[in-house]
Amino acid sequence: MHNKKIVVNILGKLLFFESFFMLLSLFVCLAYNEDDAVAFLYSFLISFASASFLTVGSFRKKPDLRKREGYIIVSLVWVVFSLFGSLPYIFSGAIASPTNAFFETMSGFTTTGSSILNNIEELSHGILFWRSLTQWLGGMGIIVLFLAILPKLGIGGRELFIAEVPGPSPDKLTPSITATARKLWGLYVIFTLVEALLLMIGGMNLFDAINHAFTTMATGGYSTKQASIAYYDSAFIQYVIILFMFIAGTNFSLSYAAVIGKPMKLIKDEEFRFYLSITLTVSALIALGLYFEGSMVEQSIRDALFTVTSILTTTGYATADYILWTPFLKMLVLMIMFVGGSAGSTGGGIKVVRILLLIKNSYHELKRLIHPNAVINVKYNRRRVPSKIVTNVMAFLVLYVGVFVCSVIIMSICMPDIDSAISSVATTLGNIGPGFGNIGPTENFSSLPDWSKWFLSFLMLLGRLELFTVLILFSKAFWKK
Amino acid sequence: MHNKKIVVNILGKLLFFESFFMLLSLFVCLAYNEDDAVAFLYSFLISFASASFLTVGSFRKKPDLRKREGYIIVSLVWVVFSLFGSLPYIFSGAIASPTNAFFETMSGFTTTGSSILNNIEELSHGILFWRSLTQWLGGMGIIVLFLAILPKLGIGGRELFIAEVPGPSPDKLTPSITATARKLWGLYVIFTLVEALLLMIGGMNLFDAINHAFTTMATGGYSTKQASIAYYDSAFIQYVIILFMFIAGTNFSLSYAAVIGKPMKLIKDEEFRFYLSITLTVSALIALGLYFEGSMVEQSIRDALFTVTSILTTTGYATADYILWTPFLKMLVLMIMFVGGSAGSTGGGIKVVRILLLIKNSYHELKRLIHPNAVINVKYNRRRVPSKIVTNVMAFLVLYVGVFVCSVIIMSICMPDIDSAISSVATTLGNIGPGFGNIGPTENFSSLPDWSKWFLSFLMLLGRLELFTVLILFSKAFWKK
Repeated sequence: MHNKKIVVNILGKLLFFESFFMLLSLFVCLAYNEDDAVAFLYSFLISFASASFLTVGSFRKKPDLRKREGYIIVSLVWVVFSLFGSLPYIFSGAIASPTNAFFETMSGFTTTGSSILNNIEELSHGILFWRSLTQWLGGMGIIVLFLAILPKLGIGGRELFIAEVPGPSPDKLTPSITATARKLWGLYVIFTLVEALLLMIGGMNLFDAINHAFTTMATGGYSTKQASIAYYDSAFIQYVIILFMFIAGTNFSLSYAAVIGKPMKLIKDEEFRFYLSITLTVSALIALGLYFEGSMVEQSIRDALFTVTSILTTTGYATADYILWTPFLKMLVLMIMFVGGSAGSTGGGIKVVRILLLIKNSYHELKRLIHPNAVINVKYNRRRVPSKIVTNVMAFLVLYVGVFVCSVIIMSICMPDIDSAISSVATTLGNIGPGFGNIGPTENFSSLPDWSKWFLSFLMLLGRLELFTVLILFSKAFWKK
Repeated sequence: MHNKKIVVNILGKLLFFESFFMLLSLFVCLAYNEDDAVAFLYSFLISFASASFLTVGSFRKKPDLRKREGYIIVSLVWVVFSLFGSLPYIFSGAIASPTNAFFETMSGFTTTGSSILNNIEELSHGILFWRSLTQWLGGMGIIVLFLAILPKLGIGGRELFIAEVPGPSPDKLTPSITATARKLWGLYVIFTLVEALLLMIGGMNLFDAINHAFTTMATGGYSTKQASIAYYDSAFIQYVIILFMFIAGTNFSLSYAAVIGKPMKLIKDEEFRFYLSITLTVSALIALGLYFEGSMVEQSIRDALFTVTSILTTTGYATADYILWTPFLKMLVLMIMFVGGSAGSTGGGIKVVRILLLIKNSYHELKRLIHPNAVINVKYNRRRVPSKIVTNVMAFLVLYVGVFVCSVIIMSICMPDIDSAISSVATTLGNIGPGFGNIGPTENFSSLPDWSKWFLSFLMLLGRLELFTVLILFSKAFWKK
């Protein structure tokens, strides 16, 4: 590829960003007087030096960035970030094994939230902060942040944006990518601050409040407590988190519209309505189920809402241990695992809009069988959806199912039963975090063999970049001149 | 609907057919001197009387049969056949509960092979024969048989054929539907006879040989032995059944071409090649797995081939109990459960050709992302596949997944765990028969609550008619003028 230098150069620039955030964690260590500051110093120096090395001598003011380079850069930057991002864990000894450290970091950046750690509370503030920070950065998107802060570098922002935010949302591209990126990140920062404030009002200390705000808004699910949110025996805190998980799973463009005084744009949006109905319907079913099994009314409603928003938005925080629920309730949880957040949100999964389009198209396909010669288009938000988009969404589901099945077969090699294999794939590919079976919300991934952790890390990346961006790199057609 | 009379009339004519086959079973009872002859006599009289009642007074020589009526007739005939077909079980007392009898009959006609019977060997020869016969009739298709025998009734054979054999096979429609139907049924009869002969050579008695030939060629899986094929400790018999299960899962049009001296048509067919590769690859993997777990070489190969052809073609005979296998081997079995037989075969499932088209299209979708303005068509058997067909196949998968997920949620209400719920849906919707979990190859469905048996019967019908034909009846658009 003749554009190798540009790719390397941009990766280098992005790495400068990451090293800056390591510096931030270093300050956290210093503030708490923790030895791990040294680990962050080393990590910062190595990252900074590597970034300098990558950018030296290859700078061009207006590189001609095309689709192909966009896909390569976006896929690679997540890998590079996870590789360098695992250094603080390794140097501090918090996670000695490089495989485990990489898994934890990729799980962070992709906002999956699956963990190999067994005793989170023994970690230093600096490491905990870094862990939450990876999720926060990955939540809204590394590239999107880059575009928001450094728009003048003249790189092909649009191509990068499409590769990192590939969902079929029609609203995602305002004329200026920079303006979009700033809008999104601005709102993201504000929501994070407001949530942190509310959590402090609920009784959390500053540190925990910021960390949980980071990982809620990113729909990441890392907690500073081993017991996750179940640690906080406060209904207020749980309701605050429910609200902000729900917001994080909403399309940020629509939330922006709502915030600047156009709430109807949000309320009239078909995806948002569907997202809200799923949340309420499934929560109601689960609340009823829990109530009839003997829970108190408020507790049933809270546990149901918390579990549903946590799983639907792919956050993965735990309060109730849903493995102990009846098969019917467990199955409801399993189903919404695959739905995921809205397009343009920080949530993972298949995405609400895709499910909506697939349901609509299925009904239309029946119509097409009755009237084979009529042209029957799917409508979304009162507009006709081009058949190209519908076809792409269907191909996405087919690929998702295909990747899912093949991955479960691979994971079944090292898993004790099929449930656990299915669960490990569902939770990583969907960027959720905890799972069922042996890796339920109260268990973790540390006992798995190393190769499977690399494989699951790959699935996290696939899921975060919505399959195509990564898979395209493995196609022959991509590398042909 | 103004064509109600035609629908009723045709259903009545079809019911005459069924009553004739009851008479056949009556003769089996008489030959073996069994009391159940009375049950068949009553069943015959009721069916014959009902058929006469339905056809009287509404006969029209050239009814104008359109698409809609086609879908209604085909969906209804399977229900009507199962309702009347359950009478012999009820009258003989073999299955006292009407729900169980209906389940067993629908499972027969749809060639699913799921059973509520706990002690098959205590049944009379007449009942066993009727049980196998329902599968044999359903295997090649009730409507197709009707078209083969009574072509001159002038009904819209093409519409009916399309509704009963909806697969995306391009070869299925020769100019004359009657000729096609006769070709298919003729070959079906010949294969059945040859298999019965070979099974007798292998040591089976005439009765068992005919019954197993019926249910092999139909990919049904009902056996006259409680232990299924594991009862026969004969490698020869098992290899014969493996061969004929494989044939039953092959497109009968292609087999016909091969039999009349054009074997290249079969060998060059992409679907057949893919079907063969899946069979051999998965069998090899499973054989290796069994061998390393301590089985003998020949036993490993035979068990692997038997299980793979049995599950892939959706027959459902059992020799080895795959529930006891390792997760990886179990997962391979679970995967091919969904693939199913070839289009134009008697096998169920999603069908090999659909899987093939979906894989091809996924790869092409990646190409389309790289070259968004190029028109990239999927090719199949060296011809371009119209995008309409590809879209339909994708919509089929989407519907299949949707129906699957919703059904699992429904079944999880009465199942002890999610595995069993998934298994019960997979095995009935795919027309396979046995499952995993509590309804594995050595267990059965008798302990389930009644409502779930009706629901699973509905899933069998959905699966046998490949979703669209039945689901279309539930759409508003279908009933609009």
